[in-house]
Parts: sequence; structure tokens; C-alpha cells
Amino acid sequence: MKYAIHTLNKAFDHRVRLGVMAVLLANEQVSFNDLKESLDLTDGNLASHVAALEKAGYVLVNKQFIGKKPNTTYQATAEGKAAFQEHLAALEKLLRGG
Amino acid sequence: MKYAIHTLNKAFDHRVRLGVMAVLLANEQVSFNDLKESLDLTDGNLASHVAALEKAGYVLVNKQFIGKKPNTTYQATAEGKAAFQEHLAALEKLLRGG
Repeated sequence: MKYAIHTLNKAFDHRVRLGVMAVLLANEQVSFNDLKESLDLTDGNLASHVAALEKAGYVLVNKQFIGKKPNTTYQATAEGKAAFQEHLAALEKLLRGG
Repeated sequence: MKYAIHTLNKAFDHRVRLGVMAVLLANEQVSFNDLKESLDLTDGNLASHVAALEKAGYVLVNKQFIGKKPNTTYQATAEGKAAFQEHLAALEKLLRGG
């Protein structure tokens, strides 16, 4: 019997990335701080995983200023949303045994 | 809103390990070769992830001989089965948003 683990997306092989995508599917735009607090992470840990998701084209970073204060927000791209849904479907299939 | 990614088990942060556990939950004892073929992996890739699961106490390795031929089989421990089920429940909870 074959178990199709290669249909699981390597970009989501980490719980921080699963968490980031779960938040960004439930919320259109999320600030760095809100994301950090929602997932209970350090700055560095969140930044490195978000950077990986950005590089994969799954997350879009918006750097803006509110007055003189920088405000960075994140959102999932259409490609990211589709890839995450595919990953979840593959995971479900794997766990059903195949 | 809090997303409890820290309830996800770090030991399962890789698709190969998810695959190994899925196979070992569906089958009591599986040989190295059957596991390798089921998951379509190289020897080295499978060996390193199985070793990590063994170290975590989630997989038991049985080394036997059939005649003079070595036959290594794997099975999930009770602890491994429980940890994997908990991981899946945590994952489901995360994806429902919390």
C-alpha cells in the first residue's frame, strides 16, 4: 500500500508555518505583533518562518507607516491559500491510509 | 485569539514522520523495506526519521533474523500511538481556529 507523503507540501513541514497559515486563512490581514501573540512566539522564530512562506509565494508582506511608526502586516496570497488547502487535503488522505 | 501551536508535537514536524506514524497505526508490524516502499523513500531518509521517532519512544525497532538474513521490523509504541492521536487532535483544533 502506498502512502502519498510526497503530496504533503514541504513548505508546511513545521508547526509555526501551519499556525501562520491557519491564522492568515481566518483573518485577511494580520500585523506582526498580533501574529506573534496569537501563536505565542518570539520575534525571531516568527520572522524566520514567515520569511520562508514569503519566499514560497504563500504570504504577502505589507510594510506601511502609521504616522511615523512602522506597521507590518501579513496576508496569505491566493496561491498560499490554495497550497495550504491542498496540503490539508493530502494530510487527511494520508491519515485515512493512502 | 490564541492559536495553540505549542500543543502540536515537535516530533511530528515532518511529513516523513507523519507518514511513518500513519503506516504504523494502520499496521501492527512493518519491515524496513515495506515502510520504505509504502512511503517511497530512500534508505537514509527513512532511517534518520525512524531513528528520531525511536529516540522519542514512539517507535519500537525489532531486529531479528530469518535464517541468516536480518529482518528489521518497526511498530508504534502505546506512547507513540497516543502522542500521534493527540497531535492530530491538536492539529484539528488549530485548523478550526484555536
